[in-house]
Amino acid sequence: MGSETINVGVIGTGAIGGIHAENLMRRTIGAKVVALMDIDRERAEAVAAACDGARVSHEVSDLIADPDVDAVLVASTDASHAEITIACIEAGKPVLCEKPLATTVADAERVLRAELATGRRLAQVGFMREYDQAHKDLYDLLRGGAIGAALKIRSLHVNPRFVRELTIDSVITNSLIHDIHSARWIMPSEVESAYVQWVPADQARPRSARLADIQLVFADGAIGSLEYNGDSGYGYEVKVEVTGETGLISTADHPSPALRHSGSVTRAITPNWPQRFAQAYIDEAQDWINAIQGNEATGPSAWDGYMSLVVADASIRSANTGRPERIVASEKPPLY
Amino acid sequence: MGSETINVGVIGTGAIGGIHAENLMRRTIGAKVVALMDIDRERAEAVAAACDGARVSHEVSDLIADPDVDAVLVASTDASHAEITIACIEAGKPVLCEKPLATTVADAERVLRAELATGRRLAQVGFMREYDQAHKDLYDLLRGGAIGAALKIRSLHVNPRFVRELTIDSVITNSLIHDIHSARWIMPSEVESAYVQWVPADQARPRSARLADIQLVFADGAIGSLEYNGDSGYGYEVKVEVTGETGLISTADHPSPALRHSGSVTRAITPNWPQRFAQAYIDEAQDWINAIQGNEATGPSAWDGYMSLVVADASIRSANTGRPERIVASEKPPLY
Amino acid sequence: MGSETINVGVIGTGAIGGIHAENLMRRTIGAKVVALMDIDRERAEAVAAACDGARVSHEVSDLIADPDVDAVLVASTDASHAEITIACIEAGKPVLCEKPLATTVADAERVLRAELATGRRLAQVGFMREYDQAHKDLYDLLRGGAIGAALKIRSLHVNPRFVRELTIDSVITNSLIHDIHSARWIMPSEVESAYVQWVPADQARPRSARLADIQLVFADGAIGSLEYNGDSGYGYEVKVEVTGETGLISTADHPSPALRHSGSVTRAITPNWPQRFAQAYIDEAQDWINAIQGNEATGPSAWDGYMSLVVADASIRSANTGRPERIVASEKPPLY
Amino acid sequence: MGSETINVGVIGTGAIGGIHAENLMRRTIGAKVVALMDIDRERAEAVAAACDGARVSHEVSDLIADPDVDAVLVASTDASHAEITIACIEAGKPVLCEKPLATTVADAERVLRAELATGRRLAQVGFMREYDQAHKDLYDLLRGGAIGAALKIRSLHVNPRFVRELTIDSVITNSLIHDIHSARWIMPSEVESAYVQWVPADQARPRSARLADIQLVFADGAIGSLEYNGDSGYGYEVKVEVTGETGLISTADHPSPALRHSGSVTRAITPNWPQRFAQAYIDEAQDWINAIQGNEATGPSAWDGYMSLVVADASIRSANTGRPERIVASEKPPLY
Repeated sequence: MGSETINVGVIGTGAIGGIHAENLMRRTIGAKVVALMDIDRERAEAVAAACDGARVSHEVSDLIADPDVDAVLVASTDASHAEITIACIEAGKPVLCEKPLATTVADAERVLRAELATGRRLAQVGFMREYDQAHKDLYDLLRGGAIGAALKIRSLHVNPRFVRELTIDSVITNSLIHDIHSARWIMPSEVESAYVQWVPADQARPRSARLADIQLVFADGAIGSLEYNGDSGYGYEVKVEVTGETGLISTADHPSPALRHSGSVTRAITPNWPQRFAQAYIDEAQDWINAIQGNEATGPSAWDGYMSLVVADASIRSANTGRPERIVASEKPPLY
Repeated sequence: MGSETINVGVIGTGAIGGIHAENLMRRTIGAKVVALMDIDRERAEAVAAACDGARVSHEVSDLIADPDVDAVLVASTDASHAEITIACIEAGKPVLCEKPLATTVADAERVLRAELATGRRLAQVGFMREYDQAHKDLYDLLRGGAIGAALKIRSLHVNPRFVRELTIDSVITNSLIHDIHSARWIMPSEVESAYVQWVPADQARPRSARLADIQLVFADGAIGSLEYNGDSGYGYEVKVEVTGETGLISTADHPSPALRHSGSVTRAITPNWPQRFAQAYIDEAQDWINAIQGNEATGPSAWDGYMSLVVADASIRSANTGRPERIVASEKPPLY
Repeated sequence: MGSETINVGVIGTGAIGGIHAENLMRRTIGAKVVALMDIDRERAEAVAAACDGARVSHEVSDLIADPDVDAVLVASTDASHAEITIACIEAGKPVLCEKPLATTVADAERVLRAELATGRRLAQVGFMREYDQAHKDLYDLLRGGAIGAALKIRSLHVNPRFVRELTIDSVITNSLIHDIHSARWIMPSEVESAYVQWVPADQARPRSARLADIQLVFADGAIGSLEYNGDSGYGYEVKVEVTGETGLISTADHPSPALRHSGSVTRAITPNWPQRFAQAYIDEAQDWINAIQGNEATGPSAWDGYMSLVVADASIRSANTGRPERIVASEKPPLY
Repeated sequence: MGSETINVGVIGTGAIGGIHAENLMRRTIGAKVVALMDIDRERAEAVAAACDGARVSHEVSDLIADPDVDAVLVASTDASHAEITIACIEAGKPVLCEKPLATTVADAERVLRAELATGRRLAQVGFMREYDQAHKDLYDLLRGGAIGAALKIRSLHVNPRFVRELTIDSVITNSLIHDIHSARWIMPSEVESAYVQWVPADQARPRSARLADIQLVFADGAIGSLEYNGDSGYGYEVKVEVTGETGLISTADHPSPALRHSGSVTRAITPNWPQRFAQAYIDEAQDWINAIQGNEATGPSAWDGYMSLVVADASIRSANTGRPERIVASEKPPLY
């Protein structure tokens, strides 16, 4: 497609869909939002109004079929992700699907099969941490050999407050899935087993989760510890550390001025994920557009979307059995 | 001009000019480089080749007069800044001139007079630190009242290695001028006097400068200390601190992962200014383009360019007399 | 005993015994080392020479029975700890026993029974981290209510290099026992289960351990994650973090100047535990002496020694079964 | 004197005198407080009561002449320091005099002459920062060659709140004198000139000082910047940095746990100097006692007390003239 402007259709214009639409319109070189669709038509129209004449589609299928739409960004409800992504793939259009790729492993497999049938990568999954500078710096140091072979990864994923109380299943599929992907991306070998512990948000509802952690074992014997806090009370943070044979790398804290006041030195913590990952979402969008122009998919793949769900699935089983559970995955196709 | 694409002509395509040209072409929304000029024609042609069909002008005057050129970025030698900026102003074209605005106070006054004659702000000076997140965060905290009234500003401006040995005069006019502008921008009142100390780079050439500092007194009684290190041996850093009535704010260090290895925790320092201020230069270019589209000049003004030279001039006098020297400036015109 | 000088006998004068003897002689107010004993008599004599006329005892029993000896410090081999501690208790002499209190839960129970028979606390166990300022500051903030109820504790215990390769059993009983005690001390409720993962030091010897972690569940539903690295290659560190309902507390890093050099900012990590905990060992000795003078035992008790072994025992079982294992402990006697 | 217990007489039992008395009684090996004297007899008796039978002397001369007193600690009013120190020297008794050694250069010279007449060092001045770990670590790194030759020293000395408003003269002689000594101790060559700027605490009283800084030039061409804040509002801090030919060293911040709470990461700052330098005062006392036992004076000398006043004197002159002022000192006698 050369460096022609890529016309994007956006499906789902809620919180994250709105951010993506704005980034594609105002902060990405070579992209334009030409169509939007949301089950809440008013919301879609409000976002369209800010996108210089983008039209609002009535149906998902209209938007995907629209000959003006070169590529599709999917930010609709989780339950619709797999279906829409498959439709895009079948229409031969590049698609950036927000995480999770699906809500079940079976649905993720259907996406994989659809993409394999086309023989080329069309889908990218919205694991935007791969575009975060703090994560990239850690990754580059590790892969550059700074600490020898990786032996353990630990991560901390801290949310400011409950929007609503979540079950352990939903925490794993919606939130820890980011950390699962980071662990798979950063570590050189695949996950083999998962063991989950959690602290309930409400003693009366034992499936509710306030804190949770997943202990991982990787195929090469390395281990992992992924921690989640859903209601920290203090802000939003994501930290990753890797211990290697000769050292340890920790991601940089998000930069903030030091304020000395009233007996202490204080640095602000980002209040929420849109602020913490603002630049990563922009860079993800730009990289996606560049990849479309270059006819070469580069970001997190449908395989990554599938495998993260496989690990999430084992983690949910562990939360039920109270024991480590093994990963059961299909073999990785050569396409990925 | 609405949000039409702004066609920019770039004069001077050396180190910083090349960075600006690339930012305007690839990382700025709404801008295009259409013409370039450099005294080294081959260098201009090399940069032009990366700018999709931009032409190479023979003369500065040709480029400024070119009807396709909407705005001009000046990154030529310091000695030519004032002349070219005046020509742009007289042609009615917005101009972003690299610092310093001129090499003498008298020349900077000529730029002011030229702009005042047009009755509107056309010139911006390349004090890009105003676009650096670490600086903006400190500025916002301070102006938001976090520490009460500002009583003292201190800054540290550290260069990795000498490119060539510099005299104290040149250190002040070329390097400390950034810190002088930061101090004027961040502090609420104007500089009144300057006192300079320095450590020579070479005992045999006592005007050479390795370390230098300027002690400032502001009109409201606040004080300042601007330090420069031209040959630190360890990297490039700019740090600013402000002491106020109830606290102290320090700019965040540039973020870098922590590497534990061989008996220590290590964080990388940026090796040079292009890396340290990469994003600030992009944001400066974007803001300049936005301001042109919005017909409203916003960045550091010709007045800032003039005043920074006035303070530099007093500092150079102090370096000669060994005593504090008073600032002598004309009155600030209402335009600024 | 008032504030009379306490005459101490030291059993075991190897690495840690030598440190204790020196601290008691030179850095503790109100203490004197009057007798020493070691299976390596020459080593005992060398230490005695530095202790102004302290005598060298032939047998453990001689030293304990020596009427000049007011109190005994036990730093002999792990296997002898329980036996010697019981002998001291039976002789009615205060005893500070290095960790672990015993090598089996059964032996630790024998120490408990011996002490219970006397009706008063005579034994202290050498969990010196309770005297470390970084640990105390975290403890005080937590117990002062700074983050509400504690929900999770995580710790990292990093050793510089293998002295020799260790099995997972020995890592738990000798090293992680410190972290087990810290978790029990810091968290308000008792440990209920433990799950262990580890990375072997040598693939050919799968019981060897390089990295290990223990996942804990506490009686009040809080959880814990205790990590150990036996061969980090980079230094010695102990870090503790507690997540509470409204915040998170992390222990301070050991202070070290920041050195900017060769492209980075570097802070030294302590090379080994004697340097990291030098002051804690002195404060432990002083507190023990003060407690003897005040006739009131204060430090970590025989019960703490017993419970840490109970948790270690469950951890070792988990390392064998690959599953979480429940703690099985006797009820806490009113004495503790 | 071997390692006999040193019997100390304490003159002045106010804030710092009380701290010294307590340290000598309870936290120093080989020392005992046997006599105290204060112009406020009740205050002396209160401190004596905590010193196991120490007597209260009626007059300074009684205490110095007391045959039971081996050594004297002087913590009386500044104006009395020189007189009392001279009396101790003439009585042949080791004396630790709080800073400043005198209130005028002339009085400090009298102390020097008295000591030179005895032919040996008997006086130590209470510049306790030489015993502070953060300072020692910086000093050791610098003197170990970590950054090549020292080119610039900068320090920041921050007080929490005014106890009472101070003039610039008193700030220099009472507070900045610590920083002057640190600069002289850390840098390899002597101070040659001083230039002072300050921000008044009260515009109506222009000699009052809230912020002050002294710019130094050293004999070898190095420079210094010593900053003082008398009413920071946020706590007590002392920071030192040295720039050398190949790097920069900064003292470690006082360690404090990191507390994440309410949108920020917070570390406590020590509230006052007794807390910040608690250990340094203990180590100073211990080192003084050890030196007396070893018949070898080691700490900051009467010469250091004299030179710090000489630099303070030039600084006060600069505060009057508004210009850099040269140091005028006698030649350093071979004794020092």
